[in-house]
Amino acid sequence: MIDRYTTVRMRNIWSMKNRWNLFLDVELAYLEALEEDKIATPGQAKKIKDLVTIDPDRIAALEQTLRHDVIAFLTHVEEQAGEATRFLHYGLTSSDVLDTVFALQLKQATAYILEEMSNLTDALDELAQRHKKTPIAGRTHGMHAEATSFGLVVLSWRESVIRSHNRLIAAANDIATGKLSGAVGNLAFGDPQRERRVLERLGLRPEPVASQIVARDRHAALFVSMAMAGSVLDNIATNIRHLQRTEVGEVYEPFGSGQRGSSAMPHKKNPVLCENVTGQARLLRSYALAALENVPLWHERDISHSSVERVIGPDATSALEFACKRLCGVIKGLTVNEDAMAKNLEHSGGIIHSEGVLLALVRSGMRRQDAYALVQRCALKAMSGEGSFIENLKSDADIKLRLSDEEIDQCFSIKEHLRWTDDLYARRSKITA
Amino acid sequence: MIDRYTTVRMRNIWSMKNRWNLFLDVELAYLEALEEDKIATPGQAKKIKDLVTIDPDRIAALEQTLRHDVIAFLTHVEEQAGEATRFLHYGLTSSDVLDTVFALQLKQATAYILEEMSNLTDALDELAQRHKKTPIAGRTHGMHAEATSFGLVVLSWRESVIRSHNRLIAAANDIATGKLSGAVGNLAFGDPQRERRVLERLGLRPEPVASQIVARDRHAALFVSMAMAGSVLDNIATNIRHLQRTEVGEVYEPFGSGQRGSSAMPHKKNPVLCENVTGQARLLRSYALAALENVPLWHERDISHSSVERVIGPDATSALEFACKRLCGVIKGLTVNEDAMAKNLEHSGGIIHSEGVLLALVRSGMRRQDAYALVQRCALKAMSGEGSFIENLKSDADIKLRLSDEEIDQCFSIKEHLRWTDDLYARRSKITA
Amino acid sequence: MIDRYTTVRMRNIWSMKNRWNLFLDVELAYLEALEEDKIATPGQAKKIKDLVTIDPDRIAALEQTLRHDVIAFLTHVEEQAGEATRFLHYGLTSSDVLDTVFALQLKQATAYILEEMSNLTDALDELAQRHKKTPIAGRTHGMHAEATSFGLVVLSWRESVIRSHNRLIAAANDIATGKLSGAVGNLAFGDPQRERRVLERLGLRPEPVASQIVARDRHAALFVSMAMAGSVLDNIATNIRHLQRTEVGEVYEPFGSGQRGSSAMPHKKNPVLCENVTGQARLLRSYALAALENVPLWHERDISHSSVERVIGPDATSALEFACKRLCGVIKGLTVNEDAMAKNLEHSGGIIHSEGVLLALVRSGMRRQDAYALVQRCALKAMSGEGSFIENLKSDADIKLRLSDEEIDQCFSIKEHLRWTDDLYARRSKITA
Amino acid sequence: MIDRYTTVRMRNIWSMKNRWNLFLDVELAYLEALEEDKIATPGQAKKIKDLVTIDPDRIAALEQTLRHDVIAFLTHVEEQAGEATRFLHYGLTSSDVLDTVFALQLKQATAYILEEMSNLTDALDELAQRHKKTPIAGRTHGMHAEATSFGLVVLSWRESVIRSHNRLIAAANDIATGKLSGAVGNLAFGDPQRERRVLERLGLRPEPVASQIVARDRHAALFVSMAMAGSVLDNIATNIRHLQRTEVGEVYEPFGSGQRGSSAMPHKKNPVLCENVTGQARLLRSYALAALENVPLWHERDISHSSVERVIGPDATSALEFACKRLCGVIKGLTVNEDAMAKNLEHSGGIIHSEGVLLALVRSGMRRQDAYALVQRCALKAMSGEGSFIENLKSDADIKLRLSDEEIDQCFSIKEHLRWTDDLYARRSKITA
Repeated sequence: MIDRYTTVRMRNIWSMKNRWNLFLDVELAYLEALEEDKIATPGQAKKIKDLVTIDPDRIAALEQTLRHDVIAFLTHVEEQAGEATRFLHYGLTSSDVLDTVFALQLKQATAYILEEMSNLTDALDELAQRHKKTPIAGRTHGMHAEATSFGLVVLSWRESVIRSHNRLIAAANDIATGKLSGAVGNLAFGDPQRERRVLERLGLRPEPVASQIVARDRHAALFVSMAMAGSVLDNIATNIRHLQRTEVGEVYEPFGSGQRGSSAMPHKKNPVLCENVTGQARLLRSYALAALENVPLWHERDISHSSVERVIGPDATSALEFACKRLCGVIKGLTVNEDAMAKNLEHSGGIIHSEGVLLALVRSGMRRQDAYALVQRCALKAMSGEGSFIENLKSDADIKLRLSDEEIDQCFSIKEHLRWTDDLYARRSKITA
Repeated sequence: MIDRYTTVRMRNIWSMKNRWNLFLDVELAYLEALEEDKIATPGQAKKIKDLVTIDPDRIAALEQTLRHDVIAFLTHVEEQAGEATRFLHYGLTSSDVLDTVFALQLKQATAYILEEMSNLTDALDELAQRHKKTPIAGRTHGMHAEATSFGLVVLSWRESVIRSHNRLIAAANDIATGKLSGAVGNLAFGDPQRERRVLERLGLRPEPVASQIVARDRHAALFVSMAMAGSVLDNIATNIRHLQRTEVGEVYEPFGSGQRGSSAMPHKKNPVLCENVTGQARLLRSYALAALENVPLWHERDISHSSVERVIGPDATSALEFACKRLCGVIKGLTVNEDAMAKNLEHSGGIIHSEGVLLALVRSGMRRQDAYALVQRCALKAMSGEGSFIENLKSDADIKLRLSDEEIDQCFSIKEHLRWTDDLYARRSKITA
Repeated sequence: MIDRYTTVRMRNIWSMKNRWNLFLDVELAYLEALEEDKIATPGQAKKIKDLVTIDPDRIAALEQTLRHDVIAFLTHVEEQAGEATRFLHYGLTSSDVLDTVFALQLKQATAYILEEMSNLTDALDELAQRHKKTPIAGRTHGMHAEATSFGLVVLSWRESVIRSHNRLIAAANDIATGKLSGAVGNLAFGDPQRERRVLERLGLRPEPVASQIVARDRHAALFVSMAMAGSVLDNIATNIRHLQRTEVGEVYEPFGSGQRGSSAMPHKKNPVLCENVTGQARLLRSYALAALENVPLWHERDISHSSVERVIGPDATSALEFACKRLCGVIKGLTVNEDAMAKNLEHSGGIIHSEGVLLALVRSGMRRQDAYALVQRCALKAMSGEGSFIENLKSDADIKLRLSDEEIDQCFSIKEHLRWTDDLYARRSKITA
Repeated sequence: MIDRYTTVRMRNIWSMKNRWNLFLDVELAYLEALEEDKIATPGQAKKIKDLVTIDPDRIAALEQTLRHDVIAFLTHVEEQAGEATRFLHYGLTSSDVLDTVFALQLKQATAYILEEMSNLTDALDELAQRHKKTPIAGRTHGMHAEATSFGLVVLSWRESVIRSHNRLIAAANDIATGKLSGAVGNLAFGDPQRERRVLERLGLRPEPVASQIVARDRHAALFVSMAMAGSVLDNIATNIRHLQRTEVGEVYEPFGSGQRGSSAMPHKKNPVLCENVTGQARLLRSYALAALENVPLWHERDISHSSVERVIGPDATSALEFACKRLCGVIKGLTVNEDAMAKNLEHSGGIIHSEGVLLALVRSGMRRQDAYALVQRCALKAMSGEGSFIENLKSDADIKLRLSDEEIDQCFSIKEHLRWTDDLYARRSKITA
């Protein structure tokens, strides 16, 4: 989580101050429940809340000796609230609080990401609406394939973001799981009703059958869903980078006035924002891997997952929030050069319409493989500079037998390619709230 | 997909023969729809079905020249059915068939995996029921923590398998998506109603807004869910390996009569089945990674994902099916040594009950941190060989002031630790059909 | 290791037949040494060699009962050679043979890869020599940067292949390590001199201090070096794909006569060979990961690495050999369109020379930041369609004060950009034998 | 790079302050060379050095407008040194400085890691020397195999660290590569001799044939070598964790006075330091992956690698330095319980000697497979509680025919197993300076 790629609100979630305050929230919520259950004397939780101010530095200093951060936290609270803390942490183990707090942090972080992803979806929708009928060369393998509309391209990006959004919601739901079931998860010194009550107040569900910890496949599910989301953003970013390249020049990501693209070459305007999204996606994929390795732990738990999560919890969530935000900015500020799209479409002298001709020949009664060979011959000739594709077709003796010049001309209509656009727009998915 | 780790039925799914037959199914389903829509003459599909027998070797031979497997397939069909094939593949692109067939294969493969996962869940449930009240040392960090029941341990494994099952169902649903929308996904030579109709007959849904292909984040979702499932199995396998190790000896995986554990050491009975599951999980994690890298493609598609999927499609599904099956066999045949569990529980002279004593002191009015220091002192003494833990407690002057010998004895009851077991069993999840 | 992406020779290395024959080689080499050391009666190894023919199916059948492949192999040999096998495997453990054989297979596989990599280096060298002075637009971020030569681009690819080659040699050396030191590596029933002698005859070195197995970081070193090599090939393939895209059209990978690029679009010639290399690289990266996870094992070994290696040993080596071979074919058959390169260079009306103008202004006495602003102004104007870059410069009042038209013209010389080409060619690395 | 797992010196390397100061060093070294080469007026570099103090905050503020960090840096320098900066960055591109500085940072970071790795090697050597003859149960699959010495176990760990050290040296050498060859690497405005001269002064070599940047396979080589090193440390840590587990109890990592192992259970002393090393290894493996994905870039470069490296440069180097240091502390402070080792060796009543008996039977003239069956029978009986292994052997009618009681007793000598220990110690590798 480096400043360059982190929002303030995300940084706040992962600050030590916020973490220890959430610790206090969880411990006090549990203490209140102990008071309700007549195990602790009433009023202690309130007293502690009044007396304690979290000082992360003091906790860090205590940890130097105690070598255990939760105990350092508890000591810090006891230093301030004394006798009132007697039943604090009663029957709990560190992981009860650690995992419950981590769930709260991840829940909040995921909510921010979903917000940005929702903004991105909106921006894509708007861009898709604007360019519903803007013709563009569809490309496969980087080569012109058939004509399509830029709006449809953007709409397919939007679909992929919505799928990512939905997967993230499912994973966020999976991880909204705390536990307060003690050292080995059997509630030896607890009570299932109390556990459920406290967690519900915190907006979480209990782990039905816990070990010492919340099972780590839940966390893996979140991190892999973030990696998938990152890869989807990467796909969009990669394609904008393609469309911006000098020879294509169909779109441009925003370039600020006063901005400089290169220290050496004053003419440069580079798709650096999108390239950055590609980079974040690599990080997100790598974090997912570490999260997957965290799943198999020893017996009721070992702590090997902890150092991993201290790093990837903040790093993955901030990378994804940042990437969504950045890409959203690109989409909103995207310059679309319709002229370049139109010009590129003509690039290859209409060979982009080869399938239309092929199918017209089939309709005329020719076998597909024969028709294919005919059309390929005319196209490859044109591509090697010999005549234009349409001329080659019209002057081909075999084709002449089947198709009139008018019929050939009809195969070259882009409008025909876009005739289902409205139907496809009608098929687009809704974002889940 | 090597024989050693593949079932016959899984091998069949991924055979070239099955693949080409599914190709034929998809092409013919589409041709029938073209006939219904009055584009093709009625009866062609039926004619082709009657005339054509798939010969994978012939297709492979044709591909040598054509350098395109789908065209080789089409040529092979035309060789046998001639004129009837004129409208075969009409308006389709290779990926329409490729991706639709791949979806059918993945759907079938996933169904097999879900079946094995369901068997595994049942086996775990049975084992958990049998050992609901079997005491075992709960362990964290590989060190004795507190007593729990072996059944609860197994039940937590079962929960993780059910979560994996549910994630796999979601991913299988995600991937049950075909497309028949042509070269760049805009149905230039197709029809959205026809696409939906044909796919529904095949048990699939259309990609709402496709590029040339079904979006690869759907496939990534499947492969990462398999990696998560593999990691969950790895967790179970790892823990069985721990419980079997010589010094623990609490469970043993099945060892066949006639089986030999080592070429050098005749006494060896090793948990090789579980170690194998651990290995498969590594493979599954690695395949997920390649699937994630497949998400960002160029424009309407590039074909870089294809070679990856030809490998990981078969390899990942067969690895996971195999791992489920193998682990299920281990669970069903597991030897549980209750005596060893009981003996190990006594290993450390009752220090496993230290939290009980700590909380008793807290209840007696002592502050937590003070109580902790007292109990730690008695425990560490015992662990370094000075007295037993319970004796140290009873002879400690500070503790004597607070707790009677009877009160201390009460802290050493395992039964008390297991008092919520029934409630926890009642919380366990149901498997989704 | 699927047929599609595997050479015959590589398939042979990894066949069960070859594996068991190598087993026999290792066992007999050791038995001969036992005979030399007067532990076994002379002549037994010879006798076994004469009597035994490996039948992989019989070994597989034996393994069904014995559940141990090495013991199945030994039983198979004993079935044929009877009494002569008494001292076969004497003092050895399965892993002695397994790891030694695996080293031999990897060594051979790596030799094939190095051969292909060497061919690729030669092909790149030849291509680089041919285009030493062919001007091409240097591109950063997909945007035109400054002119360079295509030969230099290819030469930088060649450098990266040589680095990969050298890393692979180092890793191959690392892995050329066997062991014959018994069940826990301490030669309890062996002899260090004998171990060294036998391994040397097989072309290997002993693991200096082994556990039961050769340490798995050696294997990881090989698999990660293959992942690096794959990524380097991916880089080259990716760039050829870029240069071939319709709007660039500067190079084309070979396209066979009779080849078909698309089932729908007869005009298509796609860079599918290069895309395939990109796919193989993804697989190679993923295999490296599994190999890294194989490094931490339990005590003197657990067998979790084994199933991983049975898969990635063949799969990674064949993927890399195949990718090298395929890319080499592309390089050898590459069509280079110098006209397109020249035409693209002019694409942006000379803005590619902006740095030259900037530096001329600096030399004329202007501060860099001021000069930058001036040149950027003229370039951005030209890029938005307002005048050509050179005209804008010549008509700019501030620039006029500093540079004459002739001096501006001199900044637009491509030849100047390539003046160090020979020196750079002289710096190129040699391939290590 | 979070405080918890970062040393001060490593944090300093990666501070923005250090980074910008290194930028200045590189720019001034180049300017001095320009002065020597009579391109810039003498004395400018000296003047700038005197006038400029780096203020990272000011640079950050400038970057807000300029959106380019290197230009912000140059502007910052110009603000302070004015006219003297005219030839600063002359003919260079940002990446010349960025990559050269990154190489310097990585070189320094790697030197720190190598230092810690060397300390770790020494600590392992000392531990190995101390326990050269301390008997311990060799274990495979977590099951007792044969006796060995703890020193040999440690020595095998040491070997793996030395291999990691050597690989890291090779990678550090690979990465000690800068470039000053301009926007597309062809030295359009530079000079190969000047490039080499400047880089040599900085302790680096030039990239022989660069694109805009130093090739990223060099960086990948460093990150994967760190992942391998991390995995090797993970292996050692994992095995210490095993040896410390309650039922084994053979070693203990240091536990500070005042330290607390658990917030719930006062008796806990957990191998948390080693578990932390395991966690760091997961991170290191994941970073390697991102580095591998950085290798294929577009044309002369795209900037997608940059955000990845800003994160993993600091994070990976600090994780590895930290893990080495932490593990070194564990090794130095390790408590070795020789009594527990001896006691565990007896655990299984001598079945650990089964191979010795097997081979004695072979020497007596019995066939291996027959001998194996006999010994297995006696061992499995003992393991299921029927008699002790040695008694079973002595009372077995078939064995009696072959071996006397004395001969059987001789098979149970641990000393015999350790007879080659000195020879194996003599084989141990030397650390490369």
